[in-house]
Amino acid sequence: MTEAKNYIEANKERFVNELFDLLRIPSISAQSEHRPDMQRCAEFLAAALVEAGADRAEVMPTAGNPVVYAEKIVDPSARTVLVYGHYDVMPVDPREEWHTDPFEPVIENGRIRGRGADDDKGQLWMHAKAFEAMCATGTLPCNVKFMLEGEEEIGSEHLYDFCREHRQLLAADIILVSDTSMISMDTPSITCGLRGLAYMEVEVTGPDKDLHSGLFGGAVANPANVLARLVAGLIDRDGRVTIPGFYDDVRELTPAEREAFNRAPFDAEAYKRSLSIGDVEGEAGYTTLERTGVRPSLDVNGIWGGYIGEGTKTVIPSKASAKISMRLVPNQDYRKISELFEKHFRAVAPASVKVEVRALHGGMPYVAPTDMPAYKAAEKAIEETFGKKPLPFYSGGSIPVISGFESILGIKSLLMGFGLAEDAIHSPNESYGLDQFYRGLETIPLFYKYFAEAE
Amino acid sequence: MTEAKNYIEANKERFVNELFDLLRIPSISAQSEHRPDMQRCAEFLAAALVEAGADRAEVMPTAGNPVVYAEKIVDPSARTVLVYGHYDVMPVDPREEWHTDPFEPVIENGRIRGRGADDDKGQLWMHAKAFEAMCATGTLPCNVKFMLEGEEEIGSEHLYDFCREHRQLLAADIILVSDTSMISMDTPSITCGLRGLAYMEVEVTGPDKDLHSGLFGGAVANPANVLARLVAGLIDRDGRVTIPGFYDDVRELTPAEREAFNRAPFDAEAYKRSLSIGDVEGEAGYTTLERTGVRPSLDVNGIWGGYIGEGTKTVIPSKASAKISMRLVPNQDYRKISELFEKHFRAVAPASVKVEVRALHGGMPYVAPTDMPAYKAAEKAIEETFGKKPLPFYSGGSIPVISGFESILGIKSLLMGFGLAEDAIHSPNESYGLDQFYRGLETIPLFYKYFAEAE
Repeated sequence: MTEAKNYIEANKERFVNELFDLLRIPSISAQSEHRPDMQRCAEFLAAALVEAGADRAEVMPTAGNPVVYAEKIVDPSARTVLVYGHYDVMPVDPREEWHTDPFEPVIENGRIRGRGADDDKGQLWMHAKAFEAMCATGTLPCNVKFMLEGEEEIGSEHLYDFCREHRQLLAADIILVSDTSMISMDTPSITCGLRGLAYMEVEVTGPDKDLHSGLFGGAVANPANVLARLVAGLIDRDGRVTIPGFYDDVRELTPAEREAFNRAPFDAEAYKRSLSIGDVEGEAGYTTLERTGVRPSLDVNGIWGGYIGEGTKTVIPSKASAKISMRLVPNQDYRKISELFEKHFRAVAPASVKVEVRALHGGMPYVAPTDMPAYKAAEKAIEETFGKKPLPFYSGGSIPVISGFESILGIKSLLMGFGLAEDAIHSPNESYGLDQFYRGLETIPLFYKYFAEAE
Repeated sequence: MTEAKNYIEANKERFVNELFDLLRIPSISAQSEHRPDMQRCAEFLAAALVEAGADRAEVMPTAGNPVVYAEKIVDPSARTVLVYGHYDVMPVDPREEWHTDPFEPVIENGRIRGRGADDDKGQLWMHAKAFEAMCATGTLPCNVKFMLEGEEEIGSEHLYDFCREHRQLLAADIILVSDTSMISMDTPSITCGLRGLAYMEVEVTGPDKDLHSGLFGGAVANPANVLARLVAGLIDRDGRVTIPGFYDDVRELTPAEREAFNRAPFDAEAYKRSLSIGDVEGEAGYTTLERTGVRPSLDVNGIWGGYIGEGTKTVIPSKASAKISMRLVPNQDYRKISELFEKHFRAVAPASVKVEVRALHGGMPYVAPTDMPAYKAAEKAIEETFGKKPLPFYSGGSIPVISGFESILGIKSLLMGFGLAEDAIHSPNESYGLDQFYRGLETIPLFYKYFAEAE
């Protein structure tokens, strides 16, 4: 693949400039005012993929944001790789914590900073440009299809129907995804496990209007106090989720599995230092790697109620709300967990308040086998570019649609991501190292080569 | 006092129109962008009091918002009444719950709706206009002084120094205040007790940036979860505040006092219905009247952290905050309680987070004797206009500065308020009944008469 490598070397600065144009489109799927940006972003990508060498590329409508589909069929008898990625990004708040405009990317200290720099525009752009390099140099050894969606950050609601309707079009031997991280540049890894997700919103209503906290304080249930009590009660002193039935389907690792699992390098002091925290906190009896890799969790993602402006206001709010999500592990089913959550939350709410519980989105956990040809090909490609054999890694994150691909399309996914923890995806000042971008670009053509050759 | 009564009858519609002009000034003391409105409001009042008959009226600067001082000395040997009120109002959020513009008053169903309609512009305007009626008809039997401040809703910080600097100017026999409520129009009452207030703000910080809840969830303390836990822990299952030492100075009523206290009319079903709540909630072993009248309480006035926008964001917030206030009863000292709160909150916070605790403002509880001449005069005046002898009432609210007046000026206060629970002060759609406004107008000259005559 020397030709592709040379092509990349000669064009890589242009690739970064083009990525900047992609990052400038504020394609925030969670906020409806960005609807026109979603369309614009999809059109940008379809045009870019044709330019890169695709035989066809289309912006295909769904009931939500469009899907970009593109393909190049080099030989009907060759293996087919379906590249999946997403062009939607997370909201940017707290906006004031960004050092620069989230949608005006900059390079600082060798890192591209901007919303989506890693997740997932930076990572999907490596695929578009590696594809261009292989096309331009006539070295593409597999058929390639692209499926880039615009709703990953809000649960991929309409991609499931899209897959059902286009089974034939999407037929492939493997789905190749770069939307995950490695342990570090010195310890490359391939993600073999993803947690599932059940995302809920709750609203607690007390009195039908805000009340004066002096005249009523002490006699009327305050929904903010009640919400705090209900939320606090979801986790016990041992850090375990208290929802009845929550752990019923969780597979416990065997002692041997636990031992193997904890062999991955982990420096607790460096971890705490990198987050500026005095201590870690989680389920008793498990290591930090286990807590994020193979154990479920429950987090408040947002909480609000009452007066949150400057100064003081002596009010008992009428309502208080929280967004609460749970990360799930094999074999938990997000639909069952969402139901258990709702039932429990309603059951523990006191008669002094009314509660509303809504499931906002969810996804299944996923496990990738390490003995499939695509895994072996990725292992070889990464070993060649990083100089080290990658470790299998169980990420705490979720890509709900990955388990959907398996059940709808019957195709496994290979999670070959080049992100790092320091990329701060979903946070202010998201960034992506130029070294990560270039290393990914270099690795992808090798993956195609080894995958095409694999038994 | 027939002359004053006739004057009021002939001019009362004009009085309401003038009040509307006062209500149109958005004098929100908690929000610094309204600083110019505070000055404007003070000047409006000073001019109005001169027009009403004051010998002098001044807008007197303080280190914060100005104080309006005015006086009319009819006879140096007569009794002197110092009228206290406040021209600042509460913030208006949640703005969307108002049926009309909070600063464009309207009359609907016989009620004036707008921010400050009752608290305290509507109530202080009764004093200004009753004063005008007595001046215009030559029936003012006492010397009158007005002291109208602009920081009551944010703790009256600068009024204490103002009182210290102007002891001579403010010399009086009683401070007359209409900033409280009655039980109902059928059960008039005079407020004899006010709770104190300690208002705190807490901030819990976990990681130094927002984190992805998938990659870190379960392993890192989530400040929103920790805040919920800490807030929930401030009140136990019996509804008692758990801060060590919190109840040390609370005086328990004797069985006889409790019995007398609970003789005030109270309809639990009507109370629940009026607030649309399924049940009341509070300290075990006490009635609703006791819970707001003679027992301290703790309420979350605001809570916020993480993503609170539309849709979902899978984030572990870096910070979460709450505004928490405690209502205090005799003999609790807000300074001691604020310290106990801070010490406790820091002590129970886990090593996985950092906490900041700030006291925002505070005030002492107050008890007015029912055997002082001003109380007797108010009792007689109200009996005459309402047709019923008013009950002594212990309000759950706080007017921190009232106990300050006693310690600095050595003058007792008489809390003759004409508000009602349905006025919804501090809430959206605050209102004040025209019948309350007119009844107050009619009662005030009678109070002056009986107070001037009292032994």
